[in-house]
Amino acid sequence: MLVFTNVPLQSWQRARLVGQLGGDDVHYGDPVQFTSAARDAFIRSEVAFGWCPPQLLAEAPRLRWLQLDSAGCEPYLDLDWRLLSQRITVTNLRGLFSVQVAETAVGGALALFRGLGQLAVLQHARTWRSEELREGLRTLSGASVLVIGEGAIGRAIKDRLAAFGCLVTTFGTQSSGADLVSMQQLDRALSAADLAFLSLPLTPSTRGVIDRRRLAMLAPSAVLVNVGRGGLIDEPALIEQLHAGRLGGAVLDVTDVEPLPAEHPLWSTPNVILTQHSAGGSDDEITRKLDIFLENLKLYRSRAPLRNVVDWAKGY
Amino acid sequence: MLVFTNVPLQSWQRARLVGQLGGDDVHYGDPVQFTSAARDAFIRSEVAFGWCPPQLLAEAPRLRWLQLDSAGCEPYLDLDWRLLSQRITVTNLRGLFSVQVAETAVGGALALFRGLGQLAVLQHARTWRSEELREGLRTLSGASVLVIGEGAIGRAIKDRLAAFGCLVTTFGTQSSGADLVSMQQLDRALSAADLAFLSLPLTPSTRGVIDRRRLAMLAPSAVLVNVGRGGLIDEPALIEQLHAGRLGGAVLDVTDVEPLPAEHPLWSTPNVILTQHSAGGSDDEITRKLDIFLENLKLYRSRAPLRNVVDWAKGY
Repeated sequence: MLVFTNVPLQSWQRARLVGQLGGDDVHYGDPVQFTSAARDAFIRSEVAFGWCPPQLLAEAPRLRWLQLDSAGCEPYLDLDWRLLSQRITVTNLRGLFSVQVAETAVGGALALFRGLGQLAVLQHARTWRSEELREGLRTLSGASVLVIGEGAIGRAIKDRLAAFGCLVTTFGTQSSGADLVSMQQLDRALSAADLAFLSLPLTPSTRGVIDRRRLAMLAPSAVLVNVGRGGLIDEPALIEQLHAGRLGGAVLDVTDVEPLPAEHPLWSTPNVILTQHSAGGSDDEITRKLDIFLENLKLYRSRAPLRNVVDWAKGY
Repeated sequence: MLVFTNVPLQSWQRARLVGQLGGDDVHYGDPVQFTSAARDAFIRSEVAFGWCPPQLLAEAPRLRWLQLDSAGCEPYLDLDWRLLSQRITVTNLRGLFSVQVAETAVGGALALFRGLGQLAVLQHARTWRSEELREGLRTLSGASVLVIGEGAIGRAIKDRLAAFGCLVTTFGTQSSGADLVSMQQLDRALSAADLAFLSLPLTPSTRGVIDRRRLAMLAPSAVLVNVGRGGLIDEPALIEQLHAGRLGGAVLDVTDVEPLPAEHPLWSTPNVILTQHSAGGSDDEITRKLDIFLENLKLYRSRAPLRNVVDWAKGY
């Protein structure tokens, strides 16, 4: 069989993959652009590890399994999975990024609460403003925190915040055991939050969940941290609220458009920390992605059920 | 009696103080400069809340109690306390800043591990570099951490790091229950640390504890966080190590000289986050300082033992 991958593997990681593939062929595609050569290889492949233009899945007759190199799978949601899922199994990397994302999310919140952004600007200007700054600093300790999304990332965020003395309330589906499970409960909780984390997958039912109305429910000092997907928030409304000083700040790992174009207003919106979809990153990221793929490859070969299969009815 | 204070109290806080003082007089000194008017009032005072030039303690014949507005008391260490302590009791604010300091300390470490400083520079330049950045990010999870100083601040740091999955080892005095209690044990632990926090008081025995030799023991990727006092570290050696890339980075809340002059090399030393002695700050800081003073004032009036009395034999 032919295996396609456009995950940026180092030579030693390629050697590890080849070692596990035995006699099977592998095609290494460009990690950034999906070239015509990649397309030719993809439609001849049985297994793919990485990503592809969504419509290509319907045009790859031999493909049986796509191991995504992301936790999210929203680019593929619009396909007709009633037919496709009979032929192609898609697995994602959910859970793989939870520790990394939680660290950046909590780090970003601390940066806003403890003035680290202002301090970086002062450091660049070689200016000492300790006394003035101290009066404006807030603590996570005692803060009311809403964690919206009770998956692996939401739970990792909650565990860390508990050690800071935050009062954490979670929102999720009924089956997740979250504290809040209805939109009415979420609405009531928003106005009491000092800090809200968004860690939902992007699906038709979560798109725009933090709309203009819910943004207005947040306290003017509240901080919003989005490590889910840009589409969860009404971004123009968020930018308006921040410019008007009706929101304390935002840490955005994800945005509607990525990469963010140079002229985008978010770059200079006040009290915003942009982490450029880096939150899931770590120096061992590719190795860990390959670990998951090779583990699933063993299962695939032995015709056992794969791990982290996407449920298209749920959308994640 | 006359009470002197140079803590920057707001009018409502002054009203609260006056309410508790009953008929006693209070002199409000300038919080930044110790003027001659302040001096005149200070030498007539029985109780002082704030700070004073150290030598003035010997020249204030009526002073019985000085409530410092800081946790550290190193400016007063060189006085002859064998005589002075028979007349003057000094209390400090130890413990009051531990939550705040721990949040800035962990936030600073997260900023270095998760690339938040680089992201702030990229944000200012409206430049997206997500992929390149991700590969260089590290996690607190699994990191070996050394917390040097097992007081309230060290314990608050340890508690938070435990939730991040750090492997924390503490260094302190024998009585503190720290994991390491001898300098030989500290030396052996330094080379294994991914991250080291300094939260010791500055005393004759801790001055320069992180000298050139111990700095060289740290791994080239290690990050050092100092929330104790600048004098704990050989600062010129630290700057050299950072410029040479023999240390991963440093978060410095405290420096040898404060405020740091504009021409000081630390402003532009690579991989340094300067938090300008703001770590103890919070929007309720003055209120909390006043709480402690008023609590001690009740004890003072009833001739009961005061809380947080400085032990000059220990130096904190």
